[in-house]
This record gives sequence, C-alpha cells and structure tokens, in this order.
Amino acid sequence: QKGEKTNFSGFFYLSVFQPWAKCAASRQQCTTSCILLTSSKSDVATKYLPRESGLYNWWRYWAWQRDDNSFVQFRCQVCYSKQVHAIQCDVRDPASVKNAVAETIQVAGHPDVVINNAAGNFISPSERLSANAWKTITDIVLNGTAFVTLEVGKELIKAQKGAAFLAITTIYAESGSGFVLPSASAKAGVEAMSKSLAAEWGRYGMRFNVIQPGPIKTKGAFSRLDPTGAFEKKMIERIPCGRLGTVEEIANLAAYFCSDYASWVNGAVIRMDGGEFVSMAGEFNDLKRVTKEQWDMMEAMIRKTKGS
Amino acid sequence: QKGEKTNFSGFFYLSVFQPWAKCAASRQQCTTSCILLTSSKSDVATKYLPRESGLYNWWRYWAWQRDDNSFVQFRCQVCYSKQVHAIQCDVRDPASVKNAVAETIQVAGHPDVVINNAAGNFISPSERLSANAWKTITDIVLNGTAFVTLEVGKELIKAQKGAAFLAITTIYAESGSGFVLPSASAKAGVEAMSKSLAAEWGRYGMRFNVIQPGPIKTKGAFSRLDPTGAFEKKMIERIPCGRLGTVEEIANLAAYFCSDYASWVNGAVIRMDGGEFVSMAGEFNDLKRVTKEQWDMMEAMIRKTKGS
Amino acid sequence: QKGEKTNFSGFFYLSVFQPWAKCAASRQQCTTSCILLTSSKSDVATKYLPRESGLYNWWRYWAWQRDDNSFVQFRCQVCYSKQVHAIQCDVRDPASVKNAVAETIQVAGHPDVVINNAAGNFISPSERLSANAWKTITDIVLNGTAFVTLEVGKELIKAQKGAAFLAITTIYAESGSGFVLPSASAKAGVEAMSKSLAAEWGRYGMRFNVIQPGPIKTKGAFSRLDPTGAFEKKMIERIPCGRLGTVEEIANLAAYFCSDYASWVNGAVIRMDGGEFVSMAGEFNDLKRVTKEQWDMMEAMIRKTKGS
Amino acid sequence: QKGEKTNFSGFFYLSVFQPWAKCAASRQQCTTSCILLTSSKSDVATKYLPRESGLYNWWRYWAWQRDDNSFVQFRCQVCYSKQVHAIQCDVRDPASVKNAVAETIQVAGHPDVVINNAAGNFISPSERLSANAWKTITDIVLNGTAFVTLEVGKELIKAQKGAAFLAITTIYAESGSGFVLPSASAKAGVEAMSKSLAAEWGRYGMRFNVIQPGPIKTKGAFSRLDPTGAFEKKMIERIPCGRLGTVEEIANLAAYFCSDYASWVNGAVIRMDGGEFVSMAGEFNDLKRVTKEQWDMMEAMIRKTKGS
Repeated sequence: QKGEKTNFSGFFYLSVFQPWAKCAASRQQCTTSCILLTSSKSDVATKYLPRESGLYNWWRYWAWQRDDNSFVQFRCQVCYSKQVHAIQCDVRDPASVKNAVAETIQVAGHPDVVINNAAGNFISPSERLSANAWKTITDIVLNGTAFVTLEVGKELIKAQKGAAFLAITTIYAESGSGFVLPSASAKAGVEAMSKSLAAEWGRYGMRFNVIQPGPIKTKGAFSRLDPTGAFEKKMIERIPCGRLGTVEEIANLAAYFCSDYASWVNGAVIRMDGGEFVSMAGEFNDLKRVTKEQWDMMEAMIRKTKGS
Repeated sequence: QKGEKTNFSGFFYLSVFQPWAKCAASRQQCTTSCILLTSSKSDVATKYLPRESGLYNWWRYWAWQRDDNSFVQFRCQVCYSKQVHAIQCDVRDPASVKNAVAETIQVAGHPDVVINNAAGNFISPSERLSANAWKTITDIVLNGTAFVTLEVGKELIKAQKGAAFLAITTIYAESGSGFVLPSASAKAGVEAMSKSLAAEWGRYGMRFNVIQPGPIKTKGAFSRLDPTGAFEKKMIERIPCGRLGTVEEIANLAAYFCSDYASWVNGAVIRMDGGEFVSMAGEFNDLKRVTKEQWDMMEAMIRKTKGS
Repeated sequence: QKGEKTNFSGFFYLSVFQPWAKCAASRQQCTTSCILLTSSKSDVATKYLPRESGLYNWWRYWAWQRDDNSFVQFRCQVCYSKQVHAIQCDVRDPASVKNAVAETIQVAGHPDVVINNAAGNFISPSERLSANAWKTITDIVLNGTAFVTLEVGKELIKAQKGAAFLAITTIYAESGSGFVLPSASAKAGVEAMSKSLAAEWGRYGMRFNVIQPGPIKTKGAFSRLDPTGAFEKKMIERIPCGRLGTVEEIANLAAYFCSDYASWVNGAVIRMDGGEFVSMAGEFNDLKRVTKEQWDMMEAMIRKTKGS
Repeated sequence: QKGEKTNFSGFFYLSVFQPWAKCAASRQQCTTSCILLTSSKSDVATKYLPRESGLYNWWRYWAWQRDDNSFVQFRCQVCYSKQVHAIQCDVRDPASVKNAVAETIQVAGHPDVVINNAAGNFISPSERLSANAWKTITDIVLNGTAFVTLEVGKELIKAQKGAAFLAITTIYAESGSGFVLPSASAKAGVEAMSKSLAAEWGRYGMRFNVIQPGPIKTKGAFSRLDPTGAFEKKMIERIPCGRLGTVEEIANLAAYFCSDYASWVNGAVIRMDGGEFVSMAGEFNDLKRVTKEQWDMMEAMIRKTKGS
C-alpha cells in the first residue's frame, strides 16, 4: 500500500535554474533532496511523475481534476533522489498527516520543499451550500494546509533544518468571488497563514510563498468549475494575454520559488493569470471594446467638455 | 434557559445617525427592528445590553475578554423593539445555528442587521499549536461566521428581505501575523467571505462589510493576548494616535456601517487602529526616533552625497 | 476677487454626529471651526455652499463636472464659523498654494479639516496620451494634493495643532485601470501619501484617511468619463446595490471621517461603491447570469464529476 | 557622446532559463534581441555591463548609489546582440525620451524588454520637504517611468510588436512609509501604471510586471537612505531571512519576469525582501523576542484565562 518507489529521469525542474550566480548567505542548503507535495490526485506520484519530470506532472494533474476519490483521499508525494514515494494521507485528519510526515522523514529525510496543493472546489450559488459542503472544501484547503504545514514545521524546527514552502491559492483569494465561497475563504486563510509563518518561522530557515494562478489549461479541467464549457471562452476574452495558462508555465514559477535562487523571497504572493485579475478589476477596462472611430468621436466630445 | 427578554432604554447607536439626508434608492428599509449579533460573552445580552445602549455594550465586551465558557458556548443576541433576546448557540454547530436563527425569526422577525463578532484567539508560537488548538479558533471564527451567515442569508432570500452584515476581523487579517496564526488565517477567510457575498448577494439587498480593529482598550482585555501586560505599552508607542481605541469609537463606526446611511457601502473593509498598521508596515517609520539635531546632520550628509 | 464671505445656516454635516459618546484622549479639539477643501469647481463655495450645508454641496459639485476653467484654476474653500471664504488657487503651483494657506490661516485660523478633492480625469486609450495630457492630470491630482498637504502640515506643526485630512481617490487607484492611466497612477500616489503621513505625522495630532468612491450620480457627471452615456447602464448592472451612489451618502461618510468620532481612524482607506469593485474583481461573479434551472443542471453535472 | 558600442560575453541572464518547456501561444518571440533599461547611473552600460553579463550589472549598480549627476542625467542603456549602446537621456523630459527611444529603435530595433529602473530617493521628515524636493523625486520616478513607457508603447503598437515591461518599485509602495514620502507616492503611482497597462495593452502583446525589492546589499548603498549606517543593522534584525538581499537574486527574478518563461505573468507585483514586509506589518511579530521560558509561563497564564 505504501512506499512504492520508482526511478525517473531527473529533476529537470531544478536544473531549470543553472548555477549561474551563487546565492549569498542562504541558510538553506543548495541540494534539494526531498520534495513533499500534497495533491488530490491519488496517482500522480506513482503513475505520472516518473514518466517525465517532477513539477510538470505535479501541475498537470493539479486542481479541479476528476478523481474517483479526491474528496476522500489525499496523497503526500515525496520525491527524493530521483525516486518518488507515495503516501496515502487524508490531509484533513491530523493523525493521518502525522503518520505521513513521519514516513516521509524515515524514507527520504526532512523535506527541503513542501508544496501545499491539495484542494477542492466547485461552483455553486452560496444559498445552495450546506454546512457540509462548506466544510468539505475548507477542511481540505485550510485545515489540510495547516495540518501539513504545522507538522512538517515542528519536525524541521526540532531537526534545525530549513525548507521552502509553497502554497497554491487563486486570484480570487484576495478579492473574494461569489459562487466559489468556501474556496475563496479558505484560500484567503492559506495566504494569511503563509505570510504569518514567513514572518514567524523565517528565523528557522523556512520560507513561505504563494502563487495565485488564474485559469490553467488542463485536460479535464473545469469539470467542477465550468461543467458546460461556457465559461472558458468568456475567461479567455478577458485575459489580456489572450489565452489560458499552461502547466509548464506554472511549474517554472513554482520551481523558481522552491529553488535556492529564491532564497530571499519570503512572504511573497504572486499572481500568474495572464493579466485576468487586473483586467477584471479595473473599472474602465471595458472600454477596450470601443473602436478607433468611436474614440475619435469621444475625444472630440471630451475636448469640448473641457471648456474654453 | 432561552428567550429571556429585557427592556432597555433605546437604540442610541442608531439614533447617532440623524435623518439628515434621505438615502436614494435604498433597497433596505430604514427602520431597523432586529439586530442579530454573535458573541463569545454569554451574558452580554442579558446582563449588559439593557443597562445602557446596544452596540456600546456589545463592543465593550467584545474580543478577547475572559469568559468562563467562551470556548464552549456562544450566544446569538437578538435586539428588537428595545428588547434583547438571548439565545444559547454554538456557532460551530450548524444545527445549533439553524435553531438559533429560526428562534430569532420567530421572536423578532428577520434580522435587519447581522454582526458576526464571535471569535477566539490567544498568542502562541506556531510550533506549539496542536491541531486541536488550530481547530478551536478556526471553527469559531471562520466556520461559525459561515454557518450564521449562510443560514441567515438563506432565510432572507426566501423571505425576499435585505440586511446589513458586518464582520469584525483584525488589522493582521490582511498582512498575517506570527504568534496568532489560527486567528490570522480564519479572519482572512472571513474577509474573503464578506467580499464574496457582497458581490454575490448584493442583488438580494444584502450588504457585507468588515471592520479591522486595532487594539481596543477594554477592562480585562488582552488576557489571552498580553497576559503579562508587557505588550500594551509597546503597542501604544507605535500607534500614531498615541493611544488604544475605545469601545465608543468602534461602536460608532459599526453603527454607521449597519445604518441606512451606509446603504451604498458594500464589500468594504476598513481599518480602525489609530494608524498602528501603517506605522508598523512602513519601512522607514522607525526614523521617528531620530532627533532634530540628528536630522540636521544627516541632511548635510545626504546633500553631500547628491554630488556636485 | 478674493475673500467674499457668505453666511449660511450651519454645519449640518458635523451635527450628523451627535455627541453621543465622548472620545477619549483625542488630541484634536472637538470644535471644528475651519475646513479647507480644494475643488476644481471654482464657484462651489460662493454659490452653492451657503445655500445648504457644507459637505453635501461640496460633494454635489465634486469630480468630473464641467467647469469652464477646471484645468486652470482651483479654489481653496474655507468654511469657518458658518461662513465660506473662497480663495483662487492653482494647486499645481507651490507659490499659489502657499498664499492660499496663508490667507486661510489669516482669515479663519488653522484648518481643523483638510479635504483634498481637486482632481482631473478623462478617458483615453493610453497610446493617445501626450506627455502633456499625462502631466495635466498628475500635476493636479498628485502634486496638487502634495503641495496643499505639505504646506498645511508645516503650518500645523509650527502651531502645534492637529487636523483631520481626507483624500478622495477612486476604486481603481488600487487595482489600476486602463483608459484612465494618469488618474489611476496619480490617485494611487495620493493613497500612498495618505498612509505615509498617517504614520509619520500622527504624533503631531494629524490624521489621514481616504475614501475611494465608485460612480456617484451627479448632474453633468461623466461628461469626461462617459461622454456618450453608454457606460452608465453597464456600471449599474455590475453594482450589486443596483444603483449609482448619491452625494448625500459620500458626504455622510466624509463627515464621519472628518469628525472627532473618527479620531482613532488613521491611515484607513475605504471603498464606497455599492460593491462594484468586488463584483468586477471576483473571477466567478459572472455566474450571476446563470438561471435557477441552469444551476439545477450544472449541479447534477458537478455531482457526477465528484465520482463515486 | 552617444552610441558607444562594446562587445560583451553573452546574455547569461537569458540563458539562466533553459528551453526546458515550450511556452504555448506566446505572442512574444523567444529571441530577445533588444533590452532597454533606464538607470540613474550614467556609466553602467559603458563601463560595467560589458565586463560581465547584463542584468547582473544593471542591478549591481541599481538603487540609491552615489552618482555625480544622478539627479540630472539618466541613461537609456540598450543591450542588443551582445552589444551595449548608452544614450544620454533625461527621463523627466519628454523630448529627450522621444529622442532616446527613436535612437534605440534605429540602432537596435524595437525593445523586447523595457526595465524602468531610473529612480531617486532620500530620507527626510516630510515637514522638511520643499515643493522642489517633492518634484525632484516624483518627476524622475513617476513621470520618467510614464514618459519612457508611453513612448516605447506607442512605437510598439505602431510596429505591432510586443514586449515585456518591468518596473522596480519598493516594499513601501503599497503600505506607504514616513520619511520617504515622495518616493512612496511616486512608486505607488508606478505600480498602478503597471497594472493599468497590463490590462489595457496586454492585447498588443505587452506584459507589465513589478518587483518590490527590500534592502539590497550594494557597495555604497544607502548613502541617501542610511547615511550614518545605523539603520542597516536594524533592518537585518527584522528580516526573517536574516540578511540583506543580493544583486544576483534580484537579477534572477528580473530575468525571469522578462523572459518568455513568464509570458503568462502580466499585471503581477511581487515582493522580494526576505520577509521584511510581513515581519514588520504583522501586529504580534515582536513576540519573537519572547524566550522559551517566558512562553512556558505565558502559556500557563493563558490556559488559566480560558477557564476550565
């Protein structure tokens, strides 16, 4: 059940960053040997990670994907020394998390990188949400992230080791959004957790950062967020970059945050959304629909308004 | 046990706002007749509210106060027609909340104002937090607020009535803070909830706003946040206004948000902290310690630096 | 030219706030006797302020209104002891500001309240902006606010008097917005200025706060922001409160901030926009267009997706 | 005077990013051939860039360094095909900027990357700031950035070419800070500009992002921000990572933003400060001074408070 190991070809996602410049005074050692990531896709580690590289696949199966038991089981995937070790774990259950972290340390040592990625979400009018539905999402997203983070953090402090933590939230964690209420609330909690611990645990050599992705193009994505497919076109229209994001792009940024190249990045939150958020949020951005000819006319009207 | 009613002298907190200017197009009726507030102080409503006015007392016993059973019991206090009706309620328990809301409606009608104030907090290094301690706080703060809000909201939508919701968070909900990790995370979730529902449920005549108070001077305050009293002086020093806040001040602002004078204020978040947050957050604010004479000297050094 | 005085009926905007609760430890005296406000409408003070009350009218003619010389002349309106004193002043010119502040102090004493309201704005694709157009807006909005604030502040510090400063910005100052680039940039600067001085000058008894209004319904409004009138309907549609704001509402909030009831509100920024910002910014808020029947269908699809 | 060209060894900063994963649907071509950067250090390009690589050196001489004429002259440095071309340019003067951009295009083609880095700053109590001092900083930081951005943007739109824009601001642009008022205000304006254009010009293939650096360790740094050297130790103490940042680190992040690996990063703002901001901003972070023994005692006090 536990501990299947598989060789795979290499940590491409770390070698993305060439040893071009030495980082001064990094408390964290440069050799990443153990990556712990949580995911709702139970077979990411065993099936997909070996085939290609690490974060690519991790991301590929991130978020919102169909999973027979995604709301019941989560796995901690431990990548170490070109091997992957999958641990069945329910992140909502402190005892299960405790076991998973203990097993991780036993098998692969203390994690150098922890990626809190386990999540759940679906669209619904808030008035249709039961208390149960609320808890289903927040237990995974907020409590799950807390339990994993606290457990790993305690072990790291005991062992006097540092690590890079990365949390994956969403562009609506800061702004809020209707129709995804539990996810918005829980992800906002995760961001506050990250900033809080960046300040508090920084002195122990831990770093905490957040990526807020916009819509990433994945096969089967949006099954719970855009079941009819009607929403995707609308999203693309309002993304200034004109397209959804790709798994490679998010993996690159995640790799940067987790590498020693970012060893002075702590308590940071970055949006990666092709500009969707600023495009939605800016009050006058709808004027992009105005044609050149209409602008000529309006400009004349405005000039007259200015007086004289 | 339930339903004790007491007369008291009047809604001073609403009459703070004179009918000076009529609000145009307000969907919410001007006569507030039912205020629902949650609190961790089980006897606020029965003992203190009658003695003086409403929000004043509500606030007076808000936050962090010693309470024999504050982590076990919460009350919904319903103020209506100059009466107060206290309902024993555990906000963490959806069934208990459902009952409390039903009783509220039966006794006093649908709430016109809902103040989510039930909270818990204590200082602790995060590595000392058990999963249980984490849940103790987040269950009250985040889940409690969600259960009350969702239950009242559903009833309001059914009855086609609007209401003003106010959530009390904290200045560290946005920035995060070490040593109060569960509170920071849960309060951040409450803020996202408020902004999400402001957008989603505005069309049903509901408004959702947030006050982020800094340290308010209350008798017995800080018993769980500053048990030794050493922290208070330090806080006052860094508050530009030079003092802690008062219950009257927070009550005034709360009354404003809940009144029809604020019927176009929706999805807003306001800090009330005497400037503590901006003072802490600004990188060069420590220079306030520099004396006039030192500035004269530094100015000369800087001028020389500029060259020429 | 300068110094015309007119009696008017009273500071209604201050009496909105009854002396319900005494503010503890306020450094600022409770009797407001001099209000300094800048405006691009040169005749606000002389023509309109006397007829009714103060801030109501101030706001009534605020922002975006047609003005024969709004880009050339600004007035400082000084309200004191039920009189209004208008001073011709170009806020972009430090010498002009210096004179206006000196005259204010001579005529009415040091200001108790300073409202930085002078502004300019118009819509335009950024690629059509000349360097001149850029400067026209930023000189008024950012430099004008700085010159008035610095000049008054210096005089207050010399005289050891406190005051409440209020700046009027916009909901797109934080998020940015296309097609109003100079205004967005300059208003963001004003907000940073306000937060910076809240921290730095708080100890001198000065407070600095910001209101970010959404679209306020004014006669002649939007002449430079919505010359064809096509934009207004679109804005109303996305405002959860279902309508534009009124001058009374903004005046009430402004009065609150400038009164001693808010003497512990410092470094705060509040949106007043009926929920427009959160509605635009939240990624899934467009789902409000989904009908009940469509939700029934989608819910079924999502349930199936969850597996089991 | 103008146009000296120098060979140098290669674009290391671009080769940092290996072609590990292909970017889908990037509108911007992968071959960066022209980088335009503004700087207050007039000899960066001619003297230092050739010796090593591009962004490394650019950054090395970034920020706050002593420069005989930094408040008078700015250079546009154009890097293309392993050559560097320096143009004398006063970014505050639209005509000078127009010439510099025209020369850039003539010599090296349209820029693929534009880095707005020209800045000025010094510490001062705000009451000591003259109107002139205010303008000295804001003209460079805000107007300078606007003039360069608008001029390059117009040319890119005409030529139907995209580009990556990067602005360097500061961690106090969002929070504000006393004693650096003009810089805080102007940098906040630059951030709003960046977010505004990310939304508006994204469709033309342009991306706009921001790095907010904390204190970077540079030889001669802080001459205008910490003339006596007293501030540095204090800053290091409150940075959770325990040290100042290095030029290599900021260069790495800048290179990421400007590369095609970030072609879906648009309208983003990222702090890079070792956690300084979150550490300052969080209300309870001072508790890091509490010892283990004191925590034991306080924990006991708090437990008693909670009741039982």
